[in-house]
Amino acid sequence: MLLQHCAWPEVEAYLEKSTGVIVPIGSTEQHGPNGLVGTDALCPQVLAEAAGEREGIMVAPTLSIGMAQHHLDFPGSITLRPRTLMAVVYDVVQSLARHGFSHIYFLNGHGGNINTVQAAFAEYYSDYSLHKGPSCEAQTRLKMGNWFAGGRVKQISAERFGDKEGSHATCSEISLTQYAYPESIKDVGLSPEQAPEGHFRDAVDFRRQFPDGRIGAASGLANPETGKALFEAGIADLLDEYRAFLDS
Amino acid sequence: MLLQHCAWPEVEAYLEKSTGVIVPIGSTEQHGPNGLVGTDALCPQVLAEAAGEREGIMVAPTLSIGMAQHHLDFPGSITLRPRTLMAVVYDVVQSLARHGFSHIYFLNGHGGNINTVQAAFAEYYSDYSLHKGPSCEAQTRLKMGNWFAGGRVKQISAERFGDKEGSHATCSEISLTQYAYPESIKDVGLSPEQAPEGHFRDAVDFRRQFPDGRIGAASGLANPETGKALFEAGIADLLDEYRAFLDS
Amino acid sequence: MLLQHCAWPEVEAYLEKSTGVIVPIGSTEQHGPNGLVGTDALCPQVLAEAAGEREGIMVAPTLSIGMAQHHLDFPGSITLRPRTLMAVVYDVVQSLARHGFSHIYFLNGHGGNINTVQAAFAEYYSDYSLHKGPSCEAQTRLKMGNWFAGGRVKQISAERFGDKEGSHATCSEISLTQYAYPESIKDVGLSPEQAPEGHFRDAVDFRRQFPDGRIGAASGLANPETGKALFEAGIADLLDEYRAFLDS
Amino acid sequence: MLLQHCAWPEVEAYLEKSTGVIVPIGSTEQHGPNGLVGTDALCPQVLAEAAGEREGIMVAPTLSIGMAQHHLDFPGSITLRPRTLMAVVYDVVQSLARHGFSHIYFLNGHGGNINTVQAAFAEYYSDYSLHKGPSCEAQTRLKMGNWFAGGRVKQISAERFGDKEGSHATCSEISLTQYAYPESIKDVGLSPEQAPEGHFRDAVDFRRQFPDGRIGAASGLANPETGKALFEAGIADLLDEYRAFLDS
Amino acid sequence: MLLQHCAWPEVEAYLEKSTGVIVPIGSTEQHGPNGLVGTDALCPQVLAEAAGEREGIMVAPTLSIGMAQHHLDFPGSITLRPRTLMAVVYDVVQSLARHGFSHIYFLNGHGGNINTVQAAFAEYYSDYSLHKGPSCEAQTRLKMGNWFAGGRVKQISAERFGDKEGSHATCSEISLTQYAYPESIKDVGLSPEQAPEGHFRDAVDFRRQFPDGRIGAASGLANPETGKALFEAGIADLLDEYRAFLDS
Amino acid sequence: MLLQHCAWPEVEAYLEKSTGVIVPIGSTEQHGPNGLVGTDALCPQVLAEAAGEREGIMVAPTLSIGMAQHHLDFPGSITLRPRTLMAVVYDVVQSLARHGFSHIYFLNGHGGNINTVQAAFAEYYSDYSLHKGPSCEAQTRLKMGNWFAGGRVKQISAERFGDKEGSHATCSEISLTQYAYPESIKDVGLSPEQAPEGHFRDAVDFRRQFPDGRIGAASGLANPETGKALFEAGIADLLDEYRAFLDS
Ligand code: NI
Ligand code: NI
Ligand code: NI
Ligand code: NI
Ligand code: NI
Ligand code: NI
Repeated sequence: MLLQHCAWPEVEAYLEKSTGVIVPIGSTEQHGPNGLVGTDALCPQVLAEAAGEREGIMVAPTLSIGMAQHHLDFPGSITLRPRTLMAVVYDVVQSLARHGFSHIYFLNGHGGNINTVQAAFAEYYSDYSLHKGPSCEAQTRLKMGNWFAGGRVKQISAERFGDKEGSHATCSEISLTQYAYPESIKDVGLSPEQAPEGHFRDAVDFRRQFPDGRIGAASGLANPETGKALFEAGIADLLDEYRAFLDS
Repeated sequence: MLLQHCAWPEVEAYLEKSTGVIVPIGSTEQHGPNGLVGTDALCPQVLAEAAGEREGIMVAPTLSIGMAQHHLDFPGSITLRPRTLMAVVYDVVQSLARHGFSHIYFLNGHGGNINTVQAAFAEYYSDYSLHKGPSCEAQTRLKMGNWFAGGRVKQISAERFGDKEGSHATCSEISLTQYAYPESIKDVGLSPEQAPEGHFRDAVDFRRQFPDGRIGAASGLANPETGKALFEAGIADLLDEYRAFLDS
Repeated sequence: MLLQHCAWPEVEAYLEKSTGVIVPIGSTEQHGPNGLVGTDALCPQVLAEAAGEREGIMVAPTLSIGMAQHHLDFPGSITLRPRTLMAVVYDVVQSLARHGFSHIYFLNGHGGNINTVQAAFAEYYSDYSLHKGPSCEAQTRLKMGNWFAGGRVKQISAERFGDKEGSHATCSEISLTQYAYPESIKDVGLSPEQAPEGHFRDAVDFRRQFPDGRIGAASGLANPETGKALFEAGIADLLDEYRAFLDS
Repeated sequence: MLLQHCAWPEVEAYLEKSTGVIVPIGSTEQHGPNGLVGTDALCPQVLAEAAGEREGIMVAPTLSIGMAQHHLDFPGSITLRPRTLMAVVYDVVQSLARHGFSHIYFLNGHGGNINTVQAAFAEYYSDYSLHKGPSCEAQTRLKMGNWFAGGRVKQISAERFGDKEGSHATCSEISLTQYAYPESIKDVGLSPEQAPEGHFRDAVDFRRQFPDGRIGAASGLANPETGKALFEAGIADLLDEYRAFLDS
Repeated sequence: MLLQHCAWPEVEAYLEKSTGVIVPIGSTEQHGPNGLVGTDALCPQVLAEAAGEREGIMVAPTLSIGMAQHHLDFPGSITLRPRTLMAVVYDVVQSLARHGFSHIYFLNGHGGNINTVQAAFAEYYSDYSLHKGPSCEAQTRLKMGNWFAGGRVKQISAERFGDKEGSHATCSEISLTQYAYPESIKDVGLSPEQAPEGHFRDAVDFRRQFPDGRIGAASGLANPETGKALFEAGIADLLDEYRAFLDS
Repeated sequence: MLLQHCAWPEVEAYLEKSTGVIVPIGSTEQHGPNGLVGTDALCPQVLAEAAGEREGIMVAPTLSIGMAQHHLDFPGSITLRPRTLMAVVYDVVQSLARHGFSHIYFLNGHGGNINTVQAAFAEYYSDYSLHKGPSCEAQTRLKMGNWFAGGRVKQISAERFGDKEGSHATCSEISLTQYAYPESIKDVGLSPEQAPEGHFRDAVDFRRQFPDGRIGAASGLANPETGKALFEAGIADLLDEYRAFLDS
């Protein structure tokens, strides 16, 4: 169920059956010459929406803009400052908690979001922990999962791409978007075949080290067939983890 | 062109031809018993994406969550505090400006966003105005347009719905989503046919005055055929206004 | 009654009879070669104080500094950043609400304040709406009225100045200050007689387009006689609107 | 010269002769049964305006609302949170500095503002000190003076009121407002004649200790004749200190 | 008792006997050619720890970094912006208050912290004062004392150093660190013997006026013997003041 | 070299040889019945200070208070909100960067700090990345290492404690403090021997699940002998990682 496509009485009815919700969260940032700027938002979005449709799980709108400061020297990348993203997550959580959602699962598509989203969770809990008394316990469970870190997904990545997977503009994430958006497959050459690995600081430093935006990936290996396999694997991983979360 | 579906070299190429961009901005909030929670985000999104496709205009990801505090007593509504939304708009503008986008057009679907987004624009300009010197002029033009306020759109609303249009969960916006998402049309009765008008403060006060969430609207009059007309009208209004903006 | 001139037991006694209060809010910014820097604060102040005296309404101190970033390239203009002004309005509202003021009417003299003050109201209500429960309803009604937009005032402006009224450093606001502060009437020539209209971004852009600070106004037409008429009209408009607000 | 009563070309002309300005800053808070809620704003305002008129010094609008959290249990008191007041002072300073004001003198009327205003000054300087390079020196001198702490004023207080002066709702500040606003003199009895001294935390604690709002003052001794003497003394003290500041 | 060296059951047991705690707070900033960068943190730390050990008072970890913006042109100085330091103090107070500490005594070693810490206290109290009702009274008493301003300490300073004490990198504070950290005594010449006095703004201005970092001090007179006397005096002053505070 | 024990000319001299610095960062939070409240600050402090002394590396004062919201239901725990800790790290980095420190290594002792400190780094870099131009590259490298995650340390933990190490109040960290502070070894029984594992939300939830504060640890196995081994291992791990960092 897409929250955006429900009327409020449908949400009310849903809450009588389940108080869980999935919030896809991603980023809008360069993914190399053949990866989509929207990769990190589109991947969790397509997985969450498919899982939600199959299993009747409520799926909130995707938070498409994340923490991507290091990509800003490539056109099209957009960032929220960490403190802005923290405020967004905080307000979204508080809104959903008010309605009685007790288990809020953020399905994340961007490694660069992880620290900031976890810090936002801690900010939310802090406002309970710093007071004393019976009403000062947060009734809402928060969890962030990364679609690219699920067991089935990682197995496919390892089998198909091995050490050419990379860590940004990975073969797997580009494959998944190629499956989901075949009309947007880019037919471009990549040189070198596999991008360098490394660490980075800010945007200028990033581009100096990674001139076409990729980190460690031979992104040209991406293909929609693997994308299809990742799609099914990602849904299965998500459903496993979401169900376990609901039981916690 | 959808920014999310481009690779960065495509954005780079686009910027050589045009430095304008459309950012759809909406809200996730109840729209009465037969309106979608996502109405205010989906309407500008479908218009911007269609206009962008037809005319080759870059369209950024939709900012789907807006300032909707007054709707929070209805399940499914999500708000950003005004200061959070201001920070989001600020960071998005700064990111796009860094790439050389000189004309950033926010296509808005939610009346409740207007003040906050304009305040964010002023915040952005303030950081230039409070300094003196040759580099202290903002090179970026910011504009927010409301899809529901365009000339063609208002004419259709007036002709088809007259004083039953309402001001929240309007016949027009529900019609547009019925056209765009026919599988999500809700078949529910509405009583009274036309909701009351009025002012409101916070969420509890809002729901007391507007028990089913609508304000002034006979939302049951909404229909996908009018939605189709509004879709074409909205695109035309948007293109007119966007082109005039680019020339400013 | 001026709050500043009361002792606290007088405020306590007032609250037994009425829980309404008027807060004049303006700006400190250039108003062209013959307009006062304080125009936007002085106008609502003189109207509120006169209305308050005639009808025994409590009038708070004027918030004299508003959101005026676009005027900063003219000496003497002072701005608060939008987020600062929002914090000021928030704290003033919270202070007054604590005493039991249930209807807080901001009489505004500056168009540039409107979005920010409304965003501040929404920020205040958000802190109620984001919580659930019996104590989570704001008991305080907030309203902002613009003295220059009242019915009687607009009629006089239209009759006396027509399309030479302008939108900044207007004939009407300068007339009102000439009536209220005759010793500060500036005897300067204006060229051209009527300033250009237009849009603006930041301070440098503003001054480039509007070299003497006026927008659209033939400010030389201002005169204290019209100011006197506007003074009476403004008081009457205010009292009408304030009384209706108290009844809401 | 009152900034509010100048047109911008007059401010421009002033800046050619002097780059100093006085900003009165006060508070809106209870001052006992016979003291005005506006005492702390009105006192520096009348002194600054008189000094400014006599000597042609530019005087900015009074910042009438200060840090008065401890008075909030008495009706009519209004506070800004410290962080709000800091932002106000910061933005006012930055605005004035942009115009070339090099010496900004805050004439303060409220002891409770002192720490916060000084912290705001440090916040302003921090933004220079934390960067390195030739443009990273603040060109603006900031100073806060307390009208009640000048040599001539303190001598009069000591002579006329001795140990009955008190520390809040003092005989001297009430005398000064009685001289400046004779129509607002309150004819009320005070019991006990002299209020207790002590320390306080928040508003509830304050009122418990100081039931009528005064601290240590026999405020009934206030009289407009002493107010007149304090008025002249305060102007002289201010001019001395302001001139010395300009020379620094 | 050092909080850092306790296990939580020991803190629990302490709270049954006493609800007071000392928090040393200082700064990390240059103290001239022979003063330690850590002087302002080390001095209150050694005094608090010794007093705590002798009398069984709980001593929290030292807040070693304070508001030192004006020292930043000298290598090694570190500052928190005032608003950052306020947030730190706020969170520390809120944490300790949650455990039932009712009297929190900040022993301060840096004049530059005073305004900011007091503003933080007011921020904390504001959040109580701005609400009304039985639970809206802060149960926590906050006090800041300056070790260098105690009666016994000032007497020793006056006797030993007179008008050569100075106001930054004072003979007394350097003496105290020489006693506490004899292995870190610096054997350097100082020229001139006594540094100039004066006011300062930001870091560049500070260093221009005070080229070696000292203000008014003949820091070469510092000696560990006087440090020992100050150590005993500081402990005695602290214990007097802390006990009086506990009784308030 | 301890920054606190240097005079500024010594820091200046150090910067001519090296532009690296170590900043210990920890937390003040319960560590079970036999662990010190200061464990997470003391461990990185003793390691950094010893490494700094042996190798002449500059060591800044320990940031002793971290993000510990989940521990607040145990007396003595102190937290900074994530946004506060981010501001602290930001200001410390900006201060050190101004002096020319190019490699700032935070040696961390608390898992709960990791996300927040990384988010602070990203906040710092964001302020560079969001601007364009030659001066918009951060010249400062930031790295956080966790003492408990070094190779030698983990090997000892595994050998000595195996699956009884736990994840909070671990055998290793308590051993290290027992070696460093033998006078503070707690002689208390622990029941059960090994604490449960699990996830947690806020403070109340934490204490419900982990009644004595430990997570997964058989903390009674801690011993100072192992602490000594960990001390040497931690120094060696740190020096390896710090040197590699300097070369990056
Ligand atoms: Ni990615
Ligand atoms: Ni709508
Ligand atoms: Ni105006
Ligand atoms: Ni006063
Ligand atoms: Ni010092
Ligand atoms: Ni630990």
